[in-house]
Amino acid sequence: MSLIVQKYGGTSVGTVERIEAVAEKVKTAHAEGDRMVVVVSAMSGETDRLLGLARKIRKQVDGRELDVLLSTGEQVTIALLAMALEARGVPARSYTGGQVRILTDEAYNKARILEIDGTNVRADLDAGRVVVVAGFQGVDGAGNITTLGRGGSDTTAVAMAAALDADECQIYTDVDGVYTTDPRIVHDARRLDRITYEEMLEMASLGAKVLQIRSVEFASKYKVSLRVLSSFEDGPGTLITSEENIMEAALISGVTLNRDEAKLTILGVPDRPGIASTILGPVAAANIEVDMIVQNVGADGSADFTFTVNRNDFEKAEGILKRIAGELKARAVEGDKKIAKISVVGVGMRSHAGIASRMFKALADENINIQMISTSEIKISVVVDEKYSELGVRTLHTEFGLAG
Amino acid sequence: MSLIVQKYGGTSVGTVERIEAVAEKVKTAHAEGDRMVVVVSAMSGETDRLLGLARKIRKQVDGRELDVLLSTGEQVTIALLAMALEARGVPARSYTGGQVRILTDEAYNKARILEIDGTNVRADLDAGRVVVVAGFQGVDGAGNITTLGRGGSDTTAVAMAAALDADECQIYTDVDGVYTTDPRIVHDARRLDRITYEEMLEMASLGAKVLQIRSVEFASKYKVSLRVLSSFEDGPGTLITSEENIMEAALISGVTLNRDEAKLTILGVPDRPGIASTILGPVAAANIEVDMIVQNVGADGSADFTFTVNRNDFEKAEGILKRIAGELKARAVEGDKKIAKISVVGVGMRSHAGIASRMFKALADENINIQMISTSEIKISVVVDEKYSELGVRTLHTEFGLAG
Repeated sequence: MSLIVQKYGGTSVGTVERIEAVAEKVKTAHAEGDRMVVVVSAMSGETDRLLGLARKIRKQVDGRELDVLLSTGEQVTIALLAMALEARGVPARSYTGGQVRILTDEAYNKARILEIDGTNVRADLDAGRVVVVAGFQGVDGAGNITTLGRGGSDTTAVAMAAALDADECQIYTDVDGVYTTDPRIVHDARRLDRITYEEMLEMASLGAKVLQIRSVEFASKYKVSLRVLSSFEDGPGTLITSEENIMEAALISGVTLNRDEAKLTILGVPDRPGIASTILGPVAAANIEVDMIVQNVGADGSADFTFTVNRNDFEKAEGILKRIAGELKARAVEGDKKIAKISVVGVGMRSHAGIASRMFKALADENINIQMISTSEIKISVVVDEKYSELGVRTLHTEFGLAG
Repeated sequence: MSLIVQKYGGTSVGTVERIEAVAEKVKTAHAEGDRMVVVVSAMSGETDRLLGLARKIRKQVDGRELDVLLSTGEQVTIALLAMALEARGVPARSYTGGQVRILTDEAYNKARILEIDGTNVRADLDAGRVVVVAGFQGVDGAGNITTLGRGGSDTTAVAMAAALDADECQIYTDVDGVYTTDPRIVHDARRLDRITYEEMLEMASLGAKVLQIRSVEFASKYKVSLRVLSSFEDGPGTLITSEENIMEAALISGVTLNRDEAKLTILGVPDRPGIASTILGPVAAANIEVDMIVQNVGADGSADFTFTVNRNDFEKAEGILKRIAGELKARAVEGDKKIAKISVVGVGMRSHAGIASRMFKALADENINIQMISTSEIKISVVVDEKYSELGVRTLHTEFGLAG
């Protein structure tokens, strides 16, 4: 008898009819003997409706009362889902975050889970009840309502699975799994049966927006097996798990594309210690996140320094860089918004040499020029001209034999 | 420095604009130095919206999950009002029923308050904060969310006032006080400055639907001074308090009219002990509430037995009565839905004789025939033909000098 935690997002519970469809799915699993905890989000649109009310009162909404307001969204869903289960003869009980008790720190609007007391939930599971838990919310030590920030329901599900030592945490979404690459670009992209936490983290942060990064980190830390499935069609989905649970790791699991970045270069700065922090310090101070960083030293003893930022931050970063360029007597500042970052991800590259050169050669064969390179243990990323986005992804998808 | 509990109903907080108007009222009282607790209902329409969602799932909605669902309505209002106060520079903090801790019994949908722990609320008041409390809700001993049933926010306000030993509990509504009679019938009806709990209870149960009966009973039991005021215009309202707080009690405080009842008579039943319970037992067993009861013994040793029920229950009660009439070999069953009950209410009648005969004479002078009479310590009620409703009320309002 397995203990399964399922999580359904806002779209999956967006109407009463969809909540009833979720109840049917839960009923089936419960009838097969699984002990079930179901974590749900607010009905889609509800959080925005509540935010709209708050914004009529204050332009800037935050703090304690925002969490009191937003947490009602999930509370409505848990009550309706528990009713829908009871209407189908499935004994069920709803729990708010505070009732579970999901203890968080005191950081309203973006709280972190500290501890989960599963005593009452376990008692209900032992009594054969389905336990329906409000995602996204908890309480601090003083009993104030907190929320985990947008997307926090995934984290609630993983944390519940960890606290209850569940066999699997199933995240139901509007896609049927994690793909080798974006199927809109590569038509024979393949759904992955299994993928490691590390690969999923690289894929998620690179633009495969299936799961919240934080929930994958959490799952990895507590060794919770995560499964991504579709709410709307049957299928096995993709299991995200530890490397030891994957018999034979693929060389490369996926190719990702990110078109949200822009590139900035400051040319001819003095090549001396501390130059990187002189340049990046003011950028970080302006709350601009920097992704890739490359520094080249020229023959004349001066250096060129290139980095990428989110496109929305491009103009702001460019302004800061021009000011610094003046101070450092740099030769010039150059910028380019029309770039794309293509990455190959796979734990297999840890034990196989030559992946990078295969990647570079495949791109060169298509006359795609590489502007920047960055590598990690299980990922190689290159920046290319944006117009080569699709061609680059397709080329690498074929090169590493990922097609279905 | 007074401690004031204010309560605003659903209409008074029906839109964000109205919530902001409430915030202005509270800000003014707070600036004058009052310690403030504000109890609010769900925004008007919200409870029905939530019930509508639930009814799509189950025709019959009740039980634990209904309270989880409905309690979100007030939770939205407390968050918005606390935000609106903070936006005006008034420090405020919201409390759900569970956070206060308003401990209730376990009767979902119609729970009764057992105990209020005011520790946290008092600490916030001491710190100069306005405390905003969700009406209508509490928690049972196991931490399950309960609701007090419709109109329960008045009870929450009175209970908070009792627990905190407040100086006054102010109930803001859409009327500006309690009137000597319905102003739609008598144009010079007068707003009462003060009225006793007992009179208010008689007025409320007789059709003056300003306050929930239960909240008046609660106020009477704990000697909480209640004030009914308008949310929409300034004015002193009506104070509902103990008899000893009213210097000179009026002979009659008000005239009420109830057109919701119907009359049933069973003629010629044996005049023997136990006959009343033989007749009314089956009626009560069918969950039909009986109001006035009159029994007359005729010269032939048989009796006529008359009582009133709510008009909605008339046909059901008539059916039961016909069955009993057969068993008792009664002469006939008669019914009349076109009746009205007119009552005069006043604690002054305790110490003044002759009120009843003045009432009957005034009605007789207008040729209004009295069909039934019933009296209590501070009330005399008569049943008349419905067509005399307005004339009867106006006649008695003038007779007892109630005009403004």
